[in-house]
Amino acid sequence: MSRKAQPAVLTIAGSDCSGGAGIQADLKTFAAHGCYGTSVLTALTAQNTTGVQNVHPVPPSFVEEQIKSVLDDIDIKAFKTGMLLDAENARAVVRALRSRSRDGDPLPGLVCDPVCVSTSGHTLLHPDAVKVLIEELFPLAALVTPNKSEAELLLGHSGRNEEISSLEGMLRAAEELLSLGSTAILLKGGHITATLADVEEFSSRHSNVQVVRDGLFGENMEILQIGRSLSKSDQRVVVDILTNKKGETTIFARPHISTTSTHGTGCTLSAAIASGLAQGLDLKQAVREATVYTHRGIEDAPGIGHGNGPLNHLHGLRVSCVPAKSLDSPYPLTRMLIESSIGAWKHFVEHKFVKLLGEGVLPNECFAYFIKQDYIYLKYYARAHGLLAAKSTGYPQISSATQVILNILAELETHKSMSAKFGISVEDLDNAEEGIATTGYGGYLLTIGLEGDSTKLLMAVLACLLGYGEVGLWLKRQAGEPGSKIQLEGNQYRTWIEDYSGEMYQNAVRVGLETIEAHAEKDPPSPARLEDWLNVWKRCTDLERGFWDAAMKLGI
Amino acid sequence: MSRKAQPAVLTIAGSDCSGGAGIQADLKTFAAHGCYGTSVLTALTAQNTTGVQNVHPVPPSFVEEQIKSVLDDIDIKAFKTGMLLDAENARAVVRALRSRSRDGDPLPGLVCDPVCVSTSGHTLLHPDAVKVLIEELFPLAALVTPNKSEAELLLGHSGRNEEISSLEGMLRAAEELLSLGSTAILLKGGHITATLADVEEFSSRHSNVQVVRDGLFGENMEILQIGRSLSKSDQRVVVDILTNKKGETTIFARPHISTTSTHGTGCTLSAAIASGLAQGLDLKQAVREATVYTHRGIEDAPGIGHGNGPLNHLHGLRVSCVPAKSLDSPYPLTRMLIESSIGAWKHFVEHKFVKLLGEGVLPNECFAYFIKQDYIYLKYYARAHGLLAAKSTGYPQISSATQVILNILAELETHKSMSAKFGISVEDLDNAEEGIATTGYGGYLLTIGLEGDSTKLLMAVLACLLGYGEVGLWLKRQAGEPGSKIQLEGNQYRTWIEDYSGEMYQNAVRVGLETIEAHAEKDPPSPARLEDWLNVWKRCTDLERGFWDAAMKLGI
Repeated sequence: MSRKAQPAVLTIAGSDCSGGAGIQADLKTFAAHGCYGTSVLTALTAQNTTGVQNVHPVPPSFVEEQIKSVLDDIDIKAFKTGMLLDAENARAVVRALRSRSRDGDPLPGLVCDPVCVSTSGHTLLHPDAVKVLIEELFPLAALVTPNKSEAELLLGHSGRNEEISSLEGMLRAAEELLSLGSTAILLKGGHITATLADVEEFSSRHSNVQVVRDGLFGENMEILQIGRSLSKSDQRVVVDILTNKKGETTIFARPHISTTSTHGTGCTLSAAIASGLAQGLDLKQAVREATVYTHRGIEDAPGIGHGNGPLNHLHGLRVSCVPAKSLDSPYPLTRMLIESSIGAWKHFVEHKFVKLLGEGVLPNECFAYFIKQDYIYLKYYARAHGLLAAKSTGYPQISSATQVILNILAELETHKSMSAKFGISVEDLDNAEEGIATTGYGGYLLTIGLEGDSTKLLMAVLACLLGYGEVGLWLKRQAGEPGSKIQLEGNQYRTWIEDYSGEMYQNAVRVGLETIEAHAEKDPPSPARLEDWLNVWKRCTDLERGFWDAAMKLGI
Repeated sequence: MSRKAQPAVLTIAGSDCSGGAGIQADLKTFAAHGCYGTSVLTALTAQNTTGVQNVHPVPPSFVEEQIKSVLDDIDIKAFKTGMLLDAENARAVVRALRSRSRDGDPLPGLVCDPVCVSTSGHTLLHPDAVKVLIEELFPLAALVTPNKSEAELLLGHSGRNEEISSLEGMLRAAEELLSLGSTAILLKGGHITATLADVEEFSSRHSNVQVVRDGLFGENMEILQIGRSLSKSDQRVVVDILTNKKGETTIFARPHISTTSTHGTGCTLSAAIASGLAQGLDLKQAVREATVYTHRGIEDAPGIGHGNGPLNHLHGLRVSCVPAKSLDSPYPLTRMLIESSIGAWKHFVEHKFVKLLGEGVLPNECFAYFIKQDYIYLKYYARAHGLLAAKSTGYPQISSATQVILNILAELETHKSMSAKFGISVEDLDNAEEGIATTGYGGYLLTIGLEGDSTKLLMAVLACLLGYGEVGLWLKRQAGEPGSKIQLEGNQYRTWIEDYSGEMYQNAVRVGLETIEAHAEKDPPSPARLEDWLNVWKRCTDLERGFWDAAMKLGI
């Protein structure tokens, strides 16, 4: 994930040393969303998946100091609060955040997860802090995200003692929580049993409630659920309800997962919502994407620990195999191609044929054989670019492949005039017998063009373009070294060297480099695809060497 | 990153609320390496990129409790220690770790970063702790990773007061640090100026020292550095020296980067080394990969904060666009394909043609037109699979494409016998005029086969295979609904419905689903490639609908 789009997010919460909840879960979630994570600690816990063994409070003044350090220096795009431990810390957080709000208005990106009790049942919020949350923190928040027991506790505080056990009960509770003074409430239903039939019935009774389904099979998807198709009253679902002050209510339904891996799901969800807000999603979209992210994390839980294990925060990530461009390395893919088969590349670039040519002592019959075979090879090379044009879907690509064909046709003239100097006529070129190495290489190009996409074909044709560019520069550099046997002065092959090290050819090399890098940047390869590219590159490098081997031996 | 390979790593260090150093940098680094991160806090700091504003110590007993909570529950594959603050906390860490070592031997995966001073110059280790580090912690470590000033401080403690300012000085210091009792030392040279010429000279004097170069241009890479080629004495490099008790020494050289984004580089490097060790790399390889990771993170620094900014820990990650398989969703890619163009898909699957056919009232001439065009279409469909075989590089893929052709040829016989029932002779089929919709669809398949790789062609041919499977199941399900007009009994098209909903065809659907998912799993698409696939799928879905439109109108 490039540096370019990493909005900064701040979590204010407790530490879970075992890594599944608290700021650890938040930081992992921010990272998974490509956000820059910062974190202020309100309390430390010694805990693991089996329970909370101990809690160490952080002094309120130090909570404020941390928040100040972060906000003074970093442009935070969204916030979340988690475990705040007690009233004093909650007040410290409120003070620090309020100083950043305009006229005490809600902070646009503040998600407040009213963490009260751990998954394992440990109290994480002192009772006296509930009032601070409701009266002082919630009014600052863009969203408050209680689960069933937290909602019951918060509502109990204002005198309502009803268990939330149905979708109707959830809706009522969400609306009552909203009336406590928040901008929006997401009441999480992970602990409430419902079926798809319940959702549809509920939805038919509340026509103003929008239903968002994720991960549930819709119509016309029978082929995807052979042998697994459940009736609506058998399909267990988890439902979250989002309601806001504008009177908009949405329910998010997804399949229920039978699992014990739920450690830190609340932290994760609220951190994911904050990440979405930081990236500019509206609240509903941020909630939707966050529920999907969290759901998939639970599905893919790594099975760590002996109790309620953590989810997999990294399920949506892959390691990219081509590094980003940098000042030091403007062509990272080409560099990988060359480095991955550096031995073969060196054999090609510093081939005996090349050295003798550079020294001007290459036997003329070898050069003659080479130039005739190259003349034939260029036919394949032109055809490969015709195929590349046929495989291209955009005019710029069609144009660039066509331009290469025109360049090849122009190069033929150079071949003809150079050949003439060595007594080879145009008829000799046209009537030359195709060598086996030429057939092998030419056929390989067209085979790659048949089997792969345009990028794969580019890998094949560029090994030749870039290789001759490197050969030209290598010879030129060697010729410049003191005492080198390689020289331009008086060299019968001077024109050849100057052609390939010259501006025109090197400009074509540059275009080739830019093209291949642009393809990899636009459509970054998977490891398997990169390996495929590396193999094509290596094979072409070997075929190039074989081409020169053949010239040295006047045929294979 | 799948849950399957996430080794757990533990960092024992301080908290940097601004997210660039401390356990925050460590957790981000673990995540970037696909490791499961856990973290024990030894101290909290209120800091940002401009400096450390305050430090809050964590009581030694609570440090031990946290370590115990983690180690009692989670199988930690590698450890790193960072800021330990003071002697008491250092001793607490030593006690907790020693209890996990066999006979006080070094812990295989323990990397000790002797954090003494922050990038901004703040003291992070009390002087009395140095002795504990050297005498008690280092002997437990697999590697100790001081930078220049930490090395000078550690050596100063044992009476040596020499500034480290050259490669020779680094080597001497590394060897002396080793003699303090560690298994291996990585002395980091980020603050020591050297050139590539220095490295080569150093290397020629110490033939036993291995030199590892990363990011530096080697031979035969002239084309990659046009206009940027530096002489060896102008090429500034950063060098780290790794030396171990077995007497093996390696130097890691890479280009120097002019930057102020160095906040947390030491934390990051040691966390990256621990990640590599957790994944089973040997120490040298782990160090090499960690230096490259850190280097790229600095190159790609996000420019956060007003002082020494953090590096980009996430530079090597991408968001994957196809979710992993799960119990609830065994065909995630196909699901995306269908959901992304669900409207077009429904138009196709529930086309008027399909409904009338299901009701048995489709005019015979429409069915006759359809069956003739389908007979012609299957020729394209077979050719597309011939092309697929030609594009396949493995025997299983060649075999499966060929099998489909054989199935198509067998399907022709069904077409013939079904046609006969409607008075359509084999001659009628063979002489039918190709409709425009058929030409369009058939030509599209072969065009996709020409332009893309085998996976893209699969997307095109599977829309038809899977679509007819869905149509078959949809009709069968509708026929089973009470009161439905769609029925099998007495339906003149019953055989057609039973063919496509039957076991043989549905098995082919299954194979198709598995094939397409396996391709996406082996070679996960980039966002651009996925979009391309979605477009192909949508286009084929529209072409399918067009095919039935044509049948209804007896030609377009």
